[in-house]
Amino acid sequence: MTRVTVSAMDHHGGRPRAERARALADALRQQITDDAFADGVLPDERDLGRRFGASRNAVRDALALLREEGLITRRRGVGTTVLLPKYAHGLDRLTGLAEELTGRGTVTNEVRVAVEVPALPAAIASRLEVPAGAGGVYVERLRRLDGLPLSLDTSYLTVDVGRAVLAGDLRDRDVFGLIEEAAGARLGRAEVAVHAVNADPGTARLLGIGPGAAVFALERLTRLADGRPVDAESIRIRADRMALRATLRRGGPRTS
Amino acid sequence: MTRVTVSAMDHHGGRPRAERARALADALRQQITDDAFADGVLPDERDLGRRFGASRNAVRDALALLREEGLITRRRGVGTTVLLPKYAHGLDRLTGLAEELTGRGTVTNEVRVAVEVPALPAAIASRLEVPAGAGGVYVERLRRLDGLPLSLDTSYLTVDVGRAVLAGDLRDRDVFGLIEEAAGARLGRAEVAVHAVNADPGTARLLGIGPGAAVFALERLTRLADGRPVDAESIRIRADRMALRATLRRGGPRTS
Repeated sequence: MTRVTVSAMDHHGGRPRAERARALADALRQQITDDAFADGVLPDERDLGRRFGASRNAVRDALALLREEGLITRRRGVGTTVLLPKYAHGLDRLTGLAEELTGRGTVTNEVRVAVEVPALPAAIASRLEVPAGAGGVYVERLRRLDGLPLSLDTSYLTVDVGRAVLAGDLRDRDVFGLIEEAAGARLGRAEVAVHAVNADPGTARLLGIGPGAAVFALERLTRLADGRPVDAESIRIRADRMALRATLRRGGPRTS
Repeated sequence: MTRVTVSAMDHHGGRPRAERARALADALRQQITDDAFADGVLPDERDLGRRFGASRNAVRDALALLREEGLITRRRGVGTTVLLPKYAHGLDRLTGLAEELTGRGTVTNEVRVAVEVPALPAAIASRLEVPAGAGGVYVERLRRLDGLPLSLDTSYLTVDVGRAVLAGDLRDRDVFGLIEEAAGARLGRAEVAVHAVNADPGTARLLGIGPGAAVFALERLTRLADGRPVDAESIRIRADRMALRATLRRGGPRTS
């Protein structure tokens, strides 16, 4: 049998090296997220080149991109290792962070603000379907996974649910669990919009990343089982530590 | 009746102005994505301040953030307007871009590469569950919405499906539709991982954004109805033009 010996990336041959490096970085980023490297050690440059049919220079450029993203570290004699595990938060069902990361690390929360407010910003009141004058509860938490910042969560809660949440253990618990205990029922659904933005300097400082680093900005409106919205959140998530994952089905129902 | 006159954002009072600006920017970004401003014109600074209970300075800082993100433009005498509509691509079901944006604009594709390749990169072959030597088809397209770059899509397809896609109208069609025509059946499901990264200079140039701008990097593996994977994609999406949207349900089944 004749073996095909043409390099797997020869079709990139005429393309700028930067594009070949980007393609390789994409594949490696996904493998890091899938926890594909035993002990977090990446193969050496030669081996990576063979696996991906890429030149040594393209491999180096790809690793440089991943280092800039904060995913890997390279040390002489030690090689290339994954700096921090990258977790995939499911967008398949509604879960809190600690719940989602059960068994993968300890989530702790620095409660920066937790107060009842006499009036809600108009845009928030409208999302929560209450008059601004009904007031509510505002909670801001810096969430850490195994001691390192992961996300900055800000929540506006309706006043009834919010008061119960204020009385709960905001340092160690997901807000979702506290809401469900207060309501005596499971949550229903949430509408989520995911944005990618460059971190402003203040957020970057809190999250321990460089200013301008790409982060997720999630807007999430969570409802009780009866459909009533109770929690309007804005969440900044470090994109070097977390990816979002979903399984999409063809021809499934479109939910508005 | 006594009206509560305390500012809705007084609980931010002691916080750095940057944090109040970020909260306001978050609310406005979401409203832009929801197409909440008639004719794309934002209220003036005074009105925004009133609506959000925010100081004029915080309003100005928030608008500066959104301008840096490329969402709005500000002109003396005209005011603040949405620069480009921001679309929300559903993560609820599996749809192609043109399909998703039906009625909202015209998607055209610049086909940069469309070739059969004799061997696949090992990481891609493994995702597609074929030997690397089975070869495949590589397609790279710069996708535009109403003439402006929206995403850079790279696909590795299995050789059987890929050949049919190569024979199809890659300039004007979604790959999904071409696959379904070739297979004579609907697609099944896709696993998607969403990353946020800073655009490398080459990608930034192609997409018409500044180097380092936050973009989505999607890895999507699409399967036929019988479960066989046929399309492994890496997609860069301009985050100033698109958000991702999902509805999450509590206690729903976890799909792996």
